[in-house]
Amino acid sequence: MIRNVTKTDSQSTARPEKATKTLTNVRVTAQAAKEASYRLAPLSASERNAALDAIAYALENATARVLSANMLDLQEADALVAAGDLSPASRARLALSPEKLAEMVAQIRAVAALADPLGRRLHAVELDHGLDLEKISVPLGVLAVIFEARPDAVTQIAALALKSGNAVLLKPGKEVERTAAVLVEIFREALTSTHVPHEAVALIFGREQVVELLHLSSLVDLVIPRGSRALVGYIQANTRIPVLGHADGICHIYVDQHVDQSLALAVIDDAKTDYPAVCNAVETALVHSSIAAEFLPKLAGRLHPKGVVLLGDDRTRQILDPACTGEVPVGHVKDWHTEYGDLTLSVRVIDSLDAAIDHIHQYGSAHTESICTSDPVAADRFLTEVDAATVLHNASTRFADGYRFGFGAEVGVSTSKIHARGPVGLEGLTTYKYIVRGQGHLVASYRGPTARPFTHQVKP
Amino acid sequence: MIRNVTKTDSQSTARPEKATKTLTNVRVTAQAAKEASYRLAPLSASERNAALDAIAYALENATARVLSANMLDLQEADALVAAGDLSPASRARLALSPEKLAEMVAQIRAVAALADPLGRRLHAVELDHGLDLEKISVPLGVLAVIFEARPDAVTQIAALALKSGNAVLLKPGKEVERTAAVLVEIFREALTSTHVPHEAVALIFGREQVVELLHLSSLVDLVIPRGSRALVGYIQANTRIPVLGHADGICHIYVDQHVDQSLALAVIDDAKTDYPAVCNAVETALVHSSIAAEFLPKLAGRLHPKGVVLLGDDRTRQILDPACTGEVPVGHVKDWHTEYGDLTLSVRVIDSLDAAIDHIHQYGSAHTESICTSDPVAADRFLTEVDAATVLHNASTRFADGYRFGFGAEVGVSTSKIHARGPVGLEGLTTYKYIVRGQGHLVASYRGPTARPFTHQVKP
Repeated sequence: MIRNVTKTDSQSTARPEKATKTLTNVRVTAQAAKEASYRLAPLSASERNAALDAIAYALENATARVLSANMLDLQEADALVAAGDLSPASRARLALSPEKLAEMVAQIRAVAALADPLGRRLHAVELDHGLDLEKISVPLGVLAVIFEARPDAVTQIAALALKSGNAVLLKPGKEVERTAAVLVEIFREALTSTHVPHEAVALIFGREQVVELLHLSSLVDLVIPRGSRALVGYIQANTRIPVLGHADGICHIYVDQHVDQSLALAVIDDAKTDYPAVCNAVETALVHSSIAAEFLPKLAGRLHPKGVVLLGDDRTRQILDPACTGEVPVGHVKDWHTEYGDLTLSVRVIDSLDAAIDHIHQYGSAHTESICTSDPVAADRFLTEVDAATVLHNASTRFADGYRFGFGAEVGVSTSKIHARGPVGLEGLTTYKYIVRGQGHLVASYRGPTARPFTHQVKP
Repeated sequence: MIRNVTKTDSQSTARPEKATKTLTNVRVTAQAAKEASYRLAPLSASERNAALDAIAYALENATARVLSANMLDLQEADALVAAGDLSPASRARLALSPEKLAEMVAQIRAVAALADPLGRRLHAVELDHGLDLEKISVPLGVLAVIFEARPDAVTQIAALALKSGNAVLLKPGKEVERTAAVLVEIFREALTSTHVPHEAVALIFGREQVVELLHLSSLVDLVIPRGSRALVGYIQANTRIPVLGHADGICHIYVDQHVDQSLALAVIDDAKTDYPAVCNAVETALVHSSIAAEFLPKLAGRLHPKGVVLLGDDRTRQILDPACTGEVPVGHVKDWHTEYGDLTLSVRVIDSLDAAIDHIHQYGSAHTESICTSDPVAADRFLTEVDAATVLHNASTRFADGYRFGFGAEVGVSTSKIHARGPVGLEGLTTYKYIVRGQGHLVASYRGPTARPFTHQVKP
């Protein structure tokens, strides 16, 4: 969910020595993953959980091996930091320690402990006597996840994939390639003693392999890009494989005319300053004109000391004119489409709920939108009429998150309306199949003058 | 679901006079549909049903107007039939009569009577005291449906779209353009007296408009192509808009070694001959080698008199050698990937259940697969391990159909694993949104040494 933090898709073609050794043709790797997915899909929950336990145990017993690979990644990262090509924050996220590894092991075990997303009976109906239909949740098949340079992402994504019965192709950020290669080596070794084929987890490296991967629509069932907007946009534009993710998170908070202003101030503050780099942080406050003169100075007074830069439309800038407020001047909004990802907030004065909804539909990314109001009718209209994955009333946009929603694990956030929308848990890595059990039933029997009727009795 | 029957996407740029009058820029039409979708989405079920009733009533009172437009389409169709450019069967499907129109009206009213697919509470959880999450079914937004030259498809698709709260862009087969234009005119006139904006139903014409449409990924939420495999494949390859449909329906029936042979014969007969042109008809029978010598002559004896042409692998052809059976010779299968859509059946002798599953994964289209067996273990393995939208035991592949599954209406059949899979009912035209109701809740409260815990109480 974090974006613009690490460069995950650098143009550099330099390969770390260790990783290069595992390079193979992507199609061969994906074909092996597809075949593994057929053997993985029918396994029981306890067989899949046993594989996760084996991975966790193997990782626990390979601390030195992982740390020494990580050391090589860190040395290269230090050189990048010195050259100004990597931020110290990104370098910090690469670093492993025995404690961090123990956390990663615990995370794998936590995923094993989640409820099984497979084999759920989503629907059941008797079509006729002796002819029964069931709709059962099953894995998607092969996932490809393109992710940031974080060692913990490798373990987390592999665990979520195997838990949901999917094979997975992992494309890590290049700064973590050596560490990722060793982690996947350990996973595959561990899997050889389980029912899960070791080909179910595989690494791919580098831009050319990603380009090759994006052509394999017959082998890969879902691509999940995590990282910069540019990366997500590139992938969406260059593959026929379905993509789960979001390119933009332009979230709004609308402050209605009837509102507890201190509540609205706190919600905007939380939504902007709690973690500005993430996609569910607010980018634009829309403030009703009847309270703007009173509310906007309070907003500036609350956010300026926290380092928030306000940008406004003309009406906002007039109200916040430093000649009157003694405050710092408010800049002009350049465009309402910008996802700042930092401590910048756009502010617009709006004359009605309808105008707020229109603004959100015109400039929003259908990700997460919130209304602050004490008017239940306005709240209901906003929640019903705004077309977005998550809509909130009197709550921070930052709540739009798989963990906070109680999903146990978050696979990503989707702004697509197809398949999974909003924060996506393990369920987003599943599909379903229809199973029909008959006794020689023929459709010809249900046609013509002596046609049998269907019973279509839905079962509980 | 019927394919290869009508040419729905001809290269011809000839436009009927009447249709030309309604031609507008596709982007403008789609933008208007998008705006209409925002006003349509929050309407109640009774408001949407009232719009369907208004359309049905208007159609009932416009019989002469519809029939005279249809007459012009038929005159042009007659010329095409005379020139050998249109099959008499396709021409027959174009023709309207007062009785056929009455059926179409009844169909609209039947859709209105279906259960409402919107506003269903799919999940509800208390995140914390006073902070509640709901997951509610909502419309997708704007659908684009590209369909065959049938007047009844116009009414059916428009009714399904409005019932599910979606705006719809209709692209009819060109032979029915005049009729479709008048039908949509009547719908839009009728909608002006309802809460549904009339821009929610619009026509587009011709190949260039389709090409333009496929670029409008910010305005169109789902494309549903109905028609030839070439059309579906073209659309899948040329748009970033999600596509609901299937390019192939290569379905198999595996006849296991332990089997009631008369049951298997009847199931294959039904699956092949009941309606060979549809996607859920069987293309390939896989027969276990231990019963092939007994079963295959019976199969040939049953299907040959019905005009079925068998094509076999070497072992099949050896068993069905006319020198021994006195039957007609069996041709060689050219490839196992072919969807015949006619009275042709490929036959292969297979040595095991595993080999049958491998064949299906290699050559199937993950559409519909059936096993005939009296062995419950083999049945369970097949149903579990075969990766397809619908899997059946001792039943004809022809059951894979929205009406037979009891969905009330079928939007199409999807071989995608993303979003909707298999036969798709109204639910496939919906997505969901998360609604959070709070009282000023901030995520900062759930962090740090004094962090509040989430309650995450799932509600019934």
